[in-house]
Amino acid sequence: MMGRIICAGLGPGDPELLSVKSDRLIRQARHVAYFRKAGRAGQARRIVEGMLRPDAVEYPMDYPVTTEIRFDHPDYNRMLAEFYGLWADRLAELAQTEEVVVLCEGDPLFYGSFMHLHSRLQGRSEVEIVPGIPGMAGCWNAAGLPITWGDDVLSVLAGTLPEEDLARHAAAADAVVVMKTGRNLPKVRRALAAAGRLEEAWLVERGTMPGQRVARLAEVEGADCPYFAIVLVPGRGRRPELAE
Amino acid sequence: MMGRIICAGLGPGDPELLSVKSDRLIRQARHVAYFRKAGRAGQARRIVEGMLRPDAVEYPMDYPVTTEIRFDHPDYNRMLAEFYGLWADRLAELAQTEEVVVLCEGDPLFYGSFMHLHSRLQGRSEVEIVPGIPGMAGCWNAAGLPITWGDDVLSVLAGTLPEEDLARHAAAADAVVVMKTGRNLPKVRRALAAAGRLEEAWLVERGTMPGQRVARLAEVEGADCPYFAIVLVPGRGRRPELAE
Ligand SMILES: C[S@@+](CC[C@H](N)C(=O)[O-])C[C@H]1O[C@@H](n2cnc3c(N)ncnc32)[C@H](O)[C@@H]1O
Ligand SMILES: C[S@@+](CC[C@H](N)C(=O)[O-])C[C@H]1O[C@@H](n2cnc3c(N)ncnc32)[C@H](O)[C@@H]1O
Repeated sequence: MMGRIICAGLGPGDPELLSVKSDRLIRQARHVAYFRKAGRAGQARRIVEGMLRPDAVEYPMDYPVTTEIRFDHPDYNRMLAEFYGLWADRLAELAQTEEVVVLCEGDPLFYGSFMHLHSRLQGRSEVEIVPGIPGMAGCWNAAGLPITWGDDVLSVLAGTLPEEDLARHAAAADAVVVMKTGRNLPKVRRALAAAGRLEEAWLVERGTMPGQRVARLAEVEGADCPYFAIVLVPGRGRRPELAE
Repeated sequence: MMGRIICAGLGPGDPELLSVKSDRLIRQARHVAYFRKAGRAGQARRIVEGMLRPDAVEYPMDYPVTTEIRFDHPDYNRMLAEFYGLWADRLAELAQTEEVVVLCEGDPLFYGSFMHLHSRLQGRSEVEIVPGIPGMAGCWNAAGLPITWGDDVLSVLAGTLPEEDLARHAAAADAVVVMKTGRNLPKVRRALAAAGRLEEAWLVERGTMPGQRVARLAEVEGADCPYFAIVLVPGRGRRPELAE
């Protein structure tokens, strides 16, 4: 008997926003793995609370390093690579006989940690990936903000980019999404101001999760925001929508 | 009794990729509206085939104009505006007493036709929007292509843009999605070649739908592709993923 690995996208946070397919696979799963920051419950695990079988075996994959070490530190890369390698081995081993469901916030192939396992599992295990609603889509719907119209160009940026890069891309696009805002919030604010887009920008914290907050970025004080936070600049509607 | 309007995102095409929430709302709905090209079944309606209550009342909203009239023709704008205005009136009227579910492919607020009703319904009806998996996420998962890593910049473009704009944005981004490929395919191919990205590009037709096709864009012959087709250029992974 051959097992396999299924990566189930979880969507932005509200358990009702899982796909019918992810929901079914997670409720049936005997083996469930998920990433988390050591010592934390983990957002992925929290989303499926109450859904797992009582006899499900859980495999929390605790990151060996988070933001305590800077990403450009030589140890950072080495530790993460070892970690992903180790878990790829363990899951491949388990998947020889068992079906293992790996939980992934949002959509698995959109800035997802699972991608680092996926590349290491190529040719070793059968892997199926179930898409999910990306966090950003949960956020623009939660804020009631149509993000792109007609011919609008949307650029998705990471708040970890240098300020000049953020500003340049924000100025060149019609609609902008900034992921990984967190402690980069002041830099993101300055970059959007430099691009002339600050007045149109919204900050969505914990979109579709408990504690959701939607605010105009220009009115947000403070130098920090939660890990689950996104900045949105809606598009401008270059021209009427072409009907099908 | 007050009714309301619910716009339910349907995801990329596979009915199993509806959210649990959209699935539930659609199965319960007494009134179901959807856009379609006149004389066609319509993709939105096709996705929910077999899910509607036997006594559900259907409201097909037939586009008055599609690609027969060029979008820059003066009649194009006027006809579409009248059409959206008419349906906003009808749905607002119905929603005084009834709950009406409007079906929307992919995510409703991401290049969705519903946005034109949404803006016209402001302050007239209670409107709830349920996010969906965008077509592009269905496509990159169907193709097994991780789209963005680490700090990658993703630009989403419409194939209807001028060739120079497509080429410029494709050259400036790490990952690229081109929506609305259809008859713009040769232009999109030339623009990606000019940006030096053609060799990395994939064409996904009818992602997660019956008749799905995934091919390297450089190997695709012909000047045309279906309406439901997307071009994907995966990101390059600027730097290791920052763990939570
Ligand atoms: C490593 S990325 C993972 C993205 C995920 N795979 C997705 O599809 O959304 C983590 C970032 O996603 C964003 N994010 C994801 N879900 C979110 C939510 N519900 N509310 C706000 N931000 C969210 C935050 O910017 C966070 O820093
Ligand atoms: C008017 S836009 C609507 C987008 C939709 N709201 C979404 O979230 O994907 C229509 C375009 O979406 C793309 N598209 C949507 N679903 C698709 C699928 N399953 N396969 C390929 N392309 C798709 C095509 O490029 C099509 O021309």
